[in-house]
Amino acid sequence: MPQLILHGSPLSNLVRTCLLALNEKDVDFEHDPTVPQTPEALQRHPWGKIPTLTHGEILLHETLAIINYIDDSFSGRKLKPNNPSKLALMNKWLSIYLCYMDNPIIRVIVIQRLLSKSPDENLIKNTILDVEKPLKLLDECLEKSNYIADSEVSLADFLILPALDYLKMTNEGVQLLKDTSNINSWIDRMMARESSIIVFKPNN
Amino acid sequence: MPQLILHGSPLSNLVRTCLLALNEKDVDFEHDPTVPQTPEALQRHPWGKIPTLTHGEILLHETLAIINYIDDSFSGRKLKPNNPSKLALMNKWLSIYLCYMDNPIIRVIVIQRLLSKSPDENLIKNTILDVEKPLKLLDECLEKSNYIADSEVSLADFLILPALDYLKMTNEGVQLLKDTSNINSWIDRMMARESSIIVFKPNN
Repeated sequence: MPQLILHGSPLSNLVRTCLLALNEKDVDFEHDPTVPQTPEALQRHPWGKIPTLTHGEILLHETLAIINYIDDSFSGRKLKPNNPSKLALMNKWLSIYLCYMDNPIIRVIVIQRLLSKSPDENLIKNTILDVEKPLKLLDECLEKSNYIADSEVSLADFLILPALDYLKMTNEGVQLLKDTSNINSWIDRMMARESSIIVFKPNN
Repeated sequence: MPQLILHGSPLSNLVRTCLLALNEKDVDFEHDPTVPQTPEALQRHPWGKIPTLTHGEILLHETLAIINYIDDSFSGRKLKPNNPSKLALMNKWLSIYLCYMDNPIIRVIVIQRLLSKSPDENLIKNTILDVEKPLKLLDECLEKSNYIADSEVSLADFLILPALDYLKMTNEGVQLLKDTSNINSWIDRMMARESSIIVFKPNN
């Protein structure tokens, strides 16, 4: 079997998603911490983004494609529900995260608050409402089951956890997650997993 | 088996994607032409968007979740490759379309050019470059096989076809697709399918 290499800085929430999936499946892989928009990143992704994955002749980008490929190509516990309606619920949350959560949570609140020297306070303020709504939906979802799509973890949990872990590091996140008790218990459950202990270790 | 209802105006490219999948699988379904942001749409989608799908107790939104559910839940020819690397290629193109193509093609060029009384010419002009790049990638992809992910059609073909059909109706689209001979042959092949003849019939 050719060596699988995951490319992308471990600071990226989407790289962390792939790392969680690889660790959960116990795949033997190499991690290359390429940062976005470098010549190396642009060689592997037409828009220079991360994560990307190489596996023999396969070169793959787009997080959903990568995490599905990891689950489909390696043995070990399946990270997708078997039941079509639960699988659809997982796919719905994968899309909800990418369409409605990643941008306001990571590209606005987290990056402005944790990385910008002069955060755009108006932008942050105007984004709070965009984050409140999907968090309320997620909290309602997690009232019904221990994990997002099922009673067991799935790719949806690995996509959303790294973003909420970053969100919690901001004052806005602390406020937003104050009353979402189902999300908070889920974060604790997720963070106790062996894969999380590896991926979120302090030097990452 | 409960009745499956697809909700959403047939003018929407993403509704057409679901209609193509339903017709390809020969599923018995009802079509409710709800438009976005109406009270009916908001009852079924937290952001009032279309398409949505109801099937017994299942209420589903997000196009990727809907088309995967249609393929997973009904018998008939599979609309996804079996091979993990081809499946990954399909998933990559589903994400490329939603992340890099839907907004510039549909939300900017098509809507500005075909629906706006005073199109924003600067916005259209600045968007051309964003469309050129994924079209070039798609043309290269279709040089290697008859369909996007495989030698047979898959969900990726049904996601991208309705958007390019709309793009072709604009002057910008005609220019952009002038030299993409592989895409043009693929559009012809796709449009000759029975599912396309039903979905793109003149009164839709």
